[in-house]
Amino acid sequence: MPTIMSAVVLLSGGLDSATVLRMAHATGQRIHALSFRYGQRHTMELEMARKQALSLPGVAHRIMDLQLSLFGGSALTADIPVPKGGVDENTIPVTYVPARNMVFLSLALAWAESLGAQHLYIGVNAVDYSGYPDCRPEFIQSFQQTANLATKAGVEGHPFTVHTPLINLTKAQIIQQGLALGVDYGLTRSCYDPDAQGAGCGLCDACRLRLQGFAEAGVPDPAPYQGP
Amino acid sequence: MPTIMSAVVLLSGGLDSATVLRMAHATGQRIHALSFRYGQRHTMELEMARKQALSLPGVAHRIMDLQLSLFGGSALTADIPVPKGGVDENTIPVTYVPARNMVFLSLALAWAESLGAQHLYIGVNAVDYSGYPDCRPEFIQSFQQTANLATKAGVEGHPFTVHTPLINLTKAQIIQQGLALGVDYGLTRSCYDPDAQGAGCGLCDACRLRLQGFAEAGVPDPAPYQGP
Repeated sequence: MPTIMSAVVLLSGGLDSATVLRMAHATGQRIHALSFRYGQRHTMELEMARKQALSLPGVAHRIMDLQLSLFGGSALTADIPVPKGGVDENTIPVTYVPARNMVFLSLALAWAESLGAQHLYIGVNAVDYSGYPDCRPEFIQSFQQTANLATKAGVEGHPFTVHTPLINLTKAQIIQQGLALGVDYGLTRSCYDPDAQGAGCGLCDACRLRLQGFAEAGVPDPAPYQGP
Repeated sequence: MPTIMSAVVLLSGGLDSATVLRMAHATGQRIHALSFRYGQRHTMELEMARKQALSLPGVAHRIMDLQLSLFGGSALTADIPVPKGGVDENTIPVTYVPARNMVFLSLALAWAESLGAQHLYIGVNAVDYSGYPDCRPEFIQSFQQTANLATKAGVEGHPFTVHTPLINLTKAQIIQQGLALGVDYGLTRSCYDPDAQGAGCGLCDACRLRLQGFAEAGVPDPAPYQGP
């Protein structure tokens, strides 16, 4: 009997990672999904992550507390207003959380090595990426190289691979592929500044990229938005 | 007036990081020391870290909770016996914590970027290193490269440097240099399996390397050890 391989999937509860979770699950691997409670304003995402993980058979899910707010420095974790004027492709926005994907991938790596898993999945995207440096392919490649120098598994000939199945897709393509795999996008949230019920503002970068993606894909966005 | 530079120092409460803290402080930089409560058995180290930080003027110290024990997989965080038979230079011991230095450095990076600090310090050592892959210079170099691709600061021309002032020193040399800088090694602990009062076992790899270092340096170890 062939060994079933294991993978760790970073699952935020947003649109991208919900799609990656389905893609990884469709490979037949044993999936371990990892979410973080890192002081983000939008904890509704974590409820969505939990529901996404529960919607698939055999997925183990952990939510780890992470005190990134101890460090400050981002509109997502500190008391800095979320910009709502539109996406500026040429600057790194204040919603950037310092070294976030480096931290998240390192913790995914720690879990993967403990499990004997060699595959990591992250929903970064270099097309509609909002200008974050830690969503670029050169970062991912460098991380993988470092991971294989950092770990017992890497040194002993069981290298890790970081999979980024969304990296070259537009938001519309991500949505189309996710729908084909059965993702319920009603159980995802993307807004950086939702109201108390979790309804999106429709104006922050994340809402704009998401709404534009659904419009281009020609399907309605099932997530709730605040009224006018 | 010249700008005072800032640095983040990883501070475990052990002998090595206490020495690095003094070395970094001696450069005149503003020091931010970072420790982790990561499920280690030997939390006495954290009390020592606190005392080390308090013993120097102007050092900011944070202790971050980190649920690495959620992942299991190490004698330092899980219910696996700590080996006491002697140091084996050719294998990676069960006290290895999966991807620990990758995780710790990533979090140090996150804090550094939030502060506008460009210097990270870690007390890894390639001489008496107990066989951990994440203490080797090739890992540190690769981490630094990845850090500068992962971050806004790195991308915008304010690159990070990871300093490893102990990397080529023997334990005896570390102790000699630390004593010259005023480190109180009575306020450090190294044992992987101390008793309830924090006294070292004298037999685990960390105790053996430490005791041998003091013997070679020709000075007594002021830390407490369990009686025969």
